[in-house]
Amino acid sequence: MKLSAKNLDIASRGVLLNRADARSIGVLDGDRVQVINPKNGVSVAAFVETTSTIAQQGTIGVYRFTNERLHLDEGTEIEIREAARPVSLDFIKKKMDNGRLTKEEMLTIIKDVVSDDLSSAELTAFIIASYINPLDMDEVEHLTRAMVETGEHIKFASRPIVDKHSIGGVPGNKISLLVVPIIAASGLKIPKTSSRAITGAGGTADLMEVLAKVEFSAGEVQKMTDKVGGVIVWGGATNIAPADDHIIIQEYPFKIDARGQMLASVMAKKYAVGANLVVIDIPVGEHTKVPTLQEGKKLARGFIELGERLNMKVECALTYGDIPVGRSIGPKLEVIEALRVLEGATEPNSFIQKSLSLAGIALEMSGKAARGTGASMAQDILTKGKALEKFRQIIEIQGGDPNVKSGDIVPGEHQFVVNAPSSGYVIGMNNRSLITLARIAGAPHDSGAGILLHAKKGNLIKSGEPLFTLYADRSWRLQNAIEEGRRLMPILVEGMLLDRVPSTSEF
Amino acid sequence: MKLSAKNLDIASRGVLLNRADARSIGVLDGDRVQVINPKNGVSVAAFVETTSTIAQQGTIGVYRFTNERLHLDEGTEIEIREAARPVSLDFIKKKMDNGRLTKEEMLTIIKDVVSDDLSSAELTAFIIASYINPLDMDEVEHLTRAMVETGEHIKFASRPIVDKHSIGGVPGNKISLLVVPIIAASGLKIPKTSSRAITGAGGTADLMEVLAKVEFSAGEVQKMTDKVGGVIVWGGATNIAPADDHIIIQEYPFKIDARGQMLASVMAKKYAVGANLVVIDIPVGEHTKVPTLQEGKKLARGFIELGERLNMKVECALTYGDIPVGRSIGPKLEVIEALRVLEGATEPNSFIQKSLSLAGIALEMSGKAARGTGASMAQDILTKGKALEKFRQIIEIQGGDPNVKSGDIVPGEHQFVVNAPSSGYVIGMNNRSLITLARIAGAPHDSGAGILLHAKKGNLIKSGEPLFTLYADRSWRLQNAIEEGRRLMPILVEGMLLDRVPSTSEF
Repeated sequence: MKLSAKNLDIASRGVLLNRADARSIGVLDGDRVQVINPKNGVSVAAFVETTSTIAQQGTIGVYRFTNERLHLDEGTEIEIREAARPVSLDFIKKKMDNGRLTKEEMLTIIKDVVSDDLSSAELTAFIIASYINPLDMDEVEHLTRAMVETGEHIKFASRPIVDKHSIGGVPGNKISLLVVPIIAASGLKIPKTSSRAITGAGGTADLMEVLAKVEFSAGEVQKMTDKVGGVIVWGGATNIAPADDHIIIQEYPFKIDARGQMLASVMAKKYAVGANLVVIDIPVGEHTKVPTLQEGKKLARGFIELGERLNMKVECALTYGDIPVGRSIGPKLEVIEALRVLEGATEPNSFIQKSLSLAGIALEMSGKAARGTGASMAQDILTKGKALEKFRQIIEIQGGDPNVKSGDIVPGEHQFVVNAPSSGYVIGMNNRSLITLARIAGAPHDSGAGILLHAKKGNLIKSGEPLFTLYADRSWRLQNAIEEGRRLMPILVEGMLLDRVPSTSEF
Repeated sequence: MKLSAKNLDIASRGVLLNRADARSIGVLDGDRVQVINPKNGVSVAAFVETTSTIAQQGTIGVYRFTNERLHLDEGTEIEIREAARPVSLDFIKKKMDNGRLTKEEMLTIIKDVVSDDLSSAELTAFIIASYINPLDMDEVEHLTRAMVETGEHIKFASRPIVDKHSIGGVPGNKISLLVVPIIAASGLKIPKTSSRAITGAGGTADLMEVLAKVEFSAGEVQKMTDKVGGVIVWGGATNIAPADDHIIIQEYPFKIDARGQMLASVMAKKYAVGANLVVIDIPVGEHTKVPTLQEGKKLARGFIELGERLNMKVECALTYGDIPVGRSIGPKLEVIEALRVLEGATEPNSFIQKSLSLAGIALEMSGKAARGTGASMAQDILTKGKALEKFRQIIEIQGGDPNVKSGDIVPGEHQFVVNAPSSGYVIGMNNRSLITLARIAGAPHDSGAGILLHAKKGNLIKSGEPLFTLYADRSWRLQNAIEEGRRLMPILVEGMLLDRVPSTSEF
């Protein structure tokens, strides 16, 4: 049966058949059919949905993501047939039964992931199976190489190429905005691809977007890096290791981050941009992804071993991750803080010292600095203004205003200061609650939204003094954040009431 | 923001937002929102998809399955907000981490399954987690009770209530068409709910539908059973243990049938119809779900223990499942075979003996027959025509023609006889290939399609004699089946060439 194609502008996958046609072809909702565009020969497996009205008899609706692959013109006559069951499903089943996947099996799965030939449920099965039956190091290597192979790569004419990654979970971790310009200013190349926040209050890409464009192709990343030594772009736009995005989306509901997949995901992105010197920041702490030093060291050994298999030199820094880095959380607030430091500010110490340590490790790995002198070389580059100069070049080449100053960035116009309810030391800060609060205020989508901390853990504060300020771009979001803040109590001051019966709605 | 509802007649779940509205509300594709119908107060969590064209700004498209719960009228003004993350996800995560689920946790998950508050990927995660980290008997009991509780039940005024179940995988297993009328003719009650084939060539419900209606509510099942002693209906129409259908659909891609879920699924349906005497048919054989006797016994002990916990008496029959039951596969062909036996035919032996054994076990359990005499009592009921008489009552009460005779049923008009390519004994029959072939010919949807076997394993056959006949309602399906049959070779005759190089397309 010939069906006439009809583009369905819905952000989804699959095809929509009239129920009568589906019945006559013999397919049911959820069946997988093969759709071929006769004009370009592209063939795609797609899942079937049915309707009595939205697609007329004789027509086939094609959802947007599926048609982005098929490029069917409206009205093209197409034939569909039952699709073969992807052999990937057998390999996923093998992992469910605790088998070890070969290089070819892993590549087959990842190819199907990237080409959307697996449903979200089928991909979830793979993720859950590899979470419960963890990938061994061979499988992690296969996965890494498969992720690289199914995306774009960058090859630089010369080495070393430096890269840096933080495994996340700590709010305010804006250190790439210092580390990248310091490394690039030293004469090394650092083509930094970053993520946008999924569960956080601002990924490095969300931050950089305050200052410049962040969506570039892999080729543009290479050219810009060759020109100014470094970039800070959004990895999602480059098609580098695209399997990772598919996987992360499915992990999201369960808040899992399976070790093997995390290793593969990080290292595939570094490998694909041609990096051979990699510094990994592993924040350790109760409210991070890595609760203990012991686990941090184990993870570090995983990164180092995987690096060796891929001919990459890896060093890991276990960092203090129990409280935010610096005093700002949320895109614009974090950018202001970073620019101030680049412009000469000597505070906040936690942010500066962490950035210099990480940059220092890379400088030592590359041989630019002798062992033990990397951090001071980084400090030198920062205080002499070379990092600021380099950052401006990076902003400019990414299409931003190179003359931007910290004072030019205006955070959210709607603000609310939360004062200390009692005098005493700050005894607790909850990363998760701070992130939640910043998100309720609108971060990262509303770039002016976020939290500015006036006191950090261990500081002495007097009753009535400002504890933190909430920022929002929209007043209703500020109201929501204020209400939620009362419940979350993200910062605890010694002597503060944790609860009161009967309850009061005072903050 | 108020949005105007628009029904989207697409067999799917969720809501469709205009991209501008989604952006302004702050939700992304795949986010979960809460939708409330202000007219009836029904509140449903739904996943978001976005469009620039199909839903205009200010409108919200509501997919069919979601609106079947909300009952929104076209144009109703609704408000949406970000939905809370279902707590079920934490319990699923617990199972992923090999925790044991409590009764309440299991019930929460199954409630969310039944109300479609979990995505297919999230449900898959639960299924995979319980496949890899098997449910223990406490959890199986919790799951069974949760499945019962989240659906409809039947309560009969008196006991015993008999039920029967085959765990499947064997083609031609039409025994319910004999067992149910025999049991009912003995004076016992047997409210049999059956399945339609998902991967098979014909479930009992598909067979019964040749003769009568099979879609009834739980209340109708009860009334009809009270009146004539038994029914054979499609369980899917009753809303009895509806969670099971959701689970089965997600298991399908991986061909898994996790032990704990199988036990729960079978027993929940029996419990919900009020059965207290249950016979389970466990076909054992290489090409069935249960490859060895040892595994069959283990499964039987599982059914019996679960039955004890639910105050149900269970007996299991381990049956020979390596080849088809009887000689027919496919709805009409199987119905013809069953009617002939009810009308007095004494062949095929495999079908009659298996049915009498199973019916006999139930007669003994109920006390109608003494130990060891059940099968002969069943035989008596059959040969005296009481089973036929009862079956006609069942057909009549389900809206069919009680005077139907085997000769009235006409199988597929397009037929192709496959002859033995050589003389010798039939040495192999492949259940899976036979089912595949029957499905390609159109079964179960085309009820006349299927396979009639002229020889069975161990029979001596001469070259050129008919081996089996393919039936189809549509000629192109017959052609497909003929071609596929050449490849599949579902029946092997001694001395038959298994392959030939260079290959020939002769059957």
